[in-house]
Amino acid sequence: MPVRNIAVGRPEEATHPDTLKAGLAEFISTLIFVFAGSGSGMAFNKLTDNGATTPAGLISASIAHAFALFVAVSISANISGGHVNPAVTFGAFVGGNISLLRSIVYWIAQLLGSIVACALLKFVTGGLTTPAFTLSAGVGVWEAVVFEIVMTFGLVYTVYATALDPKKGNLGIIAPIAIGFIVGANILAGGAFDGASMNPAVSFGPAVVSWSWDNHWVYWLGPFIGGGLAGVIYELIFISHTHEQLPTTDY
Amino acid sequence: MPVRNIAVGRPEEATHPDTLKAGLAEFISTLIFVFAGSGSGMAFNKLTDNGATTPAGLISASIAHAFALFVAVSISANISGGHVNPAVTFGAFVGGNISLLRSIVYWIAQLLGSIVACALLKFVTGGLTTPAFTLSAGVGVWEAVVFEIVMTFGLVYTVYATALDPKKGNLGIIAPIAIGFIVGANILAGGAFDGASMNPAVSFGPAVVSWSWDNHWVYWLGPFIGGGLAGVIYELIFISHTHEQLPTTDY
Amino acid sequence: MPVRNIAVGRPEEATHPDTLKAGLAEFISTLIFVFAGSGSGMAFNKLTDNGATTPAGLISASIAHAFALFVAVSISANISGGHVNPAVTFGAFVGGNISLLRSIVYWIAQLLGSIVACALLKFVTGGLTTPAFTLSAGVGVWEAVVFEIVMTFGLVYTVYATALDPKKGNLGIIAPIAIGFIVGANILAGGAFDGASMNPAVSFGPAVVSWSWDNHWVYWLGPFIGGGLAGVIYELIFISHTHEQLPTTDY
Amino acid sequence: MPVRNIAVGRPEEATHPDTLKAGLAEFISTLIFVFAGSGSGMAFNKLTDNGATTPAGLISASIAHAFALFVAVSISANISGGHVNPAVTFGAFVGGNISLLRSIVYWIAQLLGSIVACALLKFVTGGLTTPAFTLSAGVGVWEAVVFEIVMTFGLVYTVYATALDPKKGNLGIIAPIAIGFIVGANILAGGAFDGASMNPAVSFGPAVVSWSWDNHWVYWLGPFIGGGLAGVIYELIFISHTHEQLPTTDY
Repeated sequence: MPVRNIAVGRPEEATHPDTLKAGLAEFISTLIFVFAGSGSGMAFNKLTDNGATTPAGLISASIAHAFALFVAVSISANISGGHVNPAVTFGAFVGGNISLLRSIVYWIAQLLGSIVACALLKFVTGGLTTPAFTLSAGVGVWEAVVFEIVMTFGLVYTVYATALDPKKGNLGIIAPIAIGFIVGANILAGGAFDGASMNPAVSFGPAVVSWSWDNHWVYWLGPFIGGGLAGVIYELIFISHTHEQLPTTDY
Repeated sequence: MPVRNIAVGRPEEATHPDTLKAGLAEFISTLIFVFAGSGSGMAFNKLTDNGATTPAGLISASIAHAFALFVAVSISANISGGHVNPAVTFGAFVGGNISLLRSIVYWIAQLLGSIVACALLKFVTGGLTTPAFTLSAGVGVWEAVVFEIVMTFGLVYTVYATALDPKKGNLGIIAPIAIGFIVGANILAGGAFDGASMNPAVSFGPAVVSWSWDNHWVYWLGPFIGGGLAGVIYELIFISHTHEQLPTTDY
Repeated sequence: MPVRNIAVGRPEEATHPDTLKAGLAEFISTLIFVFAGSGSGMAFNKLTDNGATTPAGLISASIAHAFALFVAVSISANISGGHVNPAVTFGAFVGGNISLLRSIVYWIAQLLGSIVACALLKFVTGGLTTPAFTLSAGVGVWEAVVFEIVMTFGLVYTVYATALDPKKGNLGIIAPIAIGFIVGANILAGGAFDGASMNPAVSFGPAVVSWSWDNHWVYWLGPFIGGGLAGVIYELIFISHTHEQLPTTDY
Repeated sequence: MPVRNIAVGRPEEATHPDTLKAGLAEFISTLIFVFAGSGSGMAFNKLTDNGATTPAGLISASIAHAFALFVAVSISANISGGHVNPAVTFGAFVGGNISLLRSIVYWIAQLLGSIVACALLKFVTGGLTTPAFTLSAGVGVWEAVVFEIVMTFGLVYTVYATALDPKKGNLGIIAPIAIGFIVGANILAGGAFDGASMNPAVSFGPAVVSWSWDNHWVYWLGPFIGGGLAGVIYELIFISHTHEQLPTTDY
């Protein structure tokens, strides 16, 4: 039993009320998350007249995304599992923790939530640009892909260790905080190089609303590879074969 | 059973010791919250000689409000439910989680707490102005109303999902942190455009003490619409009909 | 039974191993807290060549104190109750939650911890000044006293609601975070006016090591009045007479 | 029974699947932690063209390390105990909480995790320098050693009080947050003087990748002395002899 169960899902699942309700929860969570996250970037641009990113700008983006993702995960945790991120859903799928049909519902909901958030941001700011993710000067596409792989690996590994692992114990109580804060930490590193998305929905909404698709594939490929790797590795090594584990310091 | 029970409340409820005690808890919590929140804005103005808002100023406002609201919700959670915000009380009311009479006691307590906080701030700073909420240049009133609707929707939805939902489980442990931090995240977006109030009490105290009422209605209409929408939607979709919900990843 | 029991304590209590152990825990916690807190101020002075306080400086002080106090309270919570502050001990005393003899042991331990922290800071920074708390230009002593009263009231009220209240429930789990973060929030307001001490030990150590005592009494009088008020009010209203309390939303 | 049991460990332990699994968890956690932490320093250098450290730079380093260490401890807590730091492992060893063989496995895993993180950072940033830890102008080596001793003492004392102490109770739930945040607080003090490592793995990776070893021993000697002292003191005073402890306010 290498990976638990990669299920396609029963055909009726996609229209089951609970699947739709979970999709709605993902839609609302992603909307709230992207509204605060992308909105913080637009606020920085307004306050600095579209100036170059500064350390204070990076701190602002870090806190906005950390706090908002923590909350977005919390408020959908009991309804949809609190993914708020197509790469997290993909990582959960390859580890056998969600069916393909349900994943597709989540992906659509997450992308729609991000688009609506960015459209709302465009309206409430009087038409300002929702900045799309781009590579900083001197950063190549493959460097950015690896950057996204490493950062998203950390994020999805965190989701597994604190939320999906059946032996998580009390760690589950602070799981949403951990999931939000690893994104906040990674933004302080990657934000200066490739924007530090770790989440295709986060990059998709701004790309649609500002209709700018340069290197957009980077923000899908990197997170899906990183998230998928984390799902396979955690599931194979730490969930499937841990029956013989010695007792260790628990928190 | 669309929405649970919109109750007016028994007439004697408003003077019941527990209602008054809950009102006192709301008064003290709002006072502590507004003192730190509005005080952080006055500190920024003092340090920068009333300079324009900078990203560091926005970060300061975000952290002050996030930390202080988390604490304000915590310290009244067991006594009044930890609203600290007339829009939260309204959202709880339309979802049938508080009676009208008790809501009125809360609203009065919250507004008084904010006024006293601002009056104290005026005294301890040697008479400096408590800055009222205003729209930034280029932001129209309806844009600001929608901004407040979206942000307050996120806040009150968070209150429902983590505190009022009977199925919240362990999420209740970190609920006050989530409630404080969604406000902190939203300030990093909306703070540069309309001040990001999400809370009529937060805007009312400074307006009274500095007696400036330009566009003040924006900070009532937006939060009440957003909070009311969140209450109705969460109650209808995620509380009333969730008996058939499938088990999902719990935190 | 207005206030529970203001006890002097049995004479042998002060030398009881557990009282001494609790004193040692308070000493170590205060040392760790002041080392990070005052150290952050010295780091700012070094990086800016003793420049004027900026919003970034205030944010740094806020985070350093919030994070370090949260930890300092956590690590002594089970041993001494996690006071780390003579005003908290005083507030616990007037509410009848600690005896006078034990309070005196705590006060000595807290003051010694702060002195040792500041002496260590002086050594490790090659003799830099540990900045004593002072009033900013334009702030009078009575304004500062009231500032400290309001802020310390909020702190000690938080200690009561989240840690000392027998009905605190799950709030106790996040109590150390709340206690640390209300100090962080208040620093963003008061830090620009009177340094925002809320803690006589925090002001005493730097005063001893830099031997500067101007207005030092402000940082004793304000916190003791604010902490004492919070102890009396919370104990009288929310602990002693709450048997008839109605069930409310619990977290 | 002064200190519990300093065990060498059975010879087969080092190759036991669980020891290797714990080592892998330490490797991944340290990689994730150092990637965000050192990456935040490289981001600051990029955004400021290798400018001098500013208060905003220190805040960025503080948040990146606090958030990432909190997560890194969380995700390995149930598998390896969540050390992520050779000085923590050493402190656990001298207190008798881990065998020597298992410690050696952890140390190797932690150092490798840091090296791989820094090598990845070098690649994804297009070859930028991973800055090694150095002493600021005017800071002597022994001052830095004492700085690291005091800060690491606080860190390992926190690990003991919140995670290793059998009487920790509910404190264990927030232990990973406390462990991450004391590092964040200390960086705001020590970061301006000696970089505030508190962790030989954190300094080792950058030293290897940038091959700069000036004063590198400082970042081993200080943390090991501080961590060892904390382990001995906490174990002797607060764990071994606490049977007669009086009940105190629990959180």
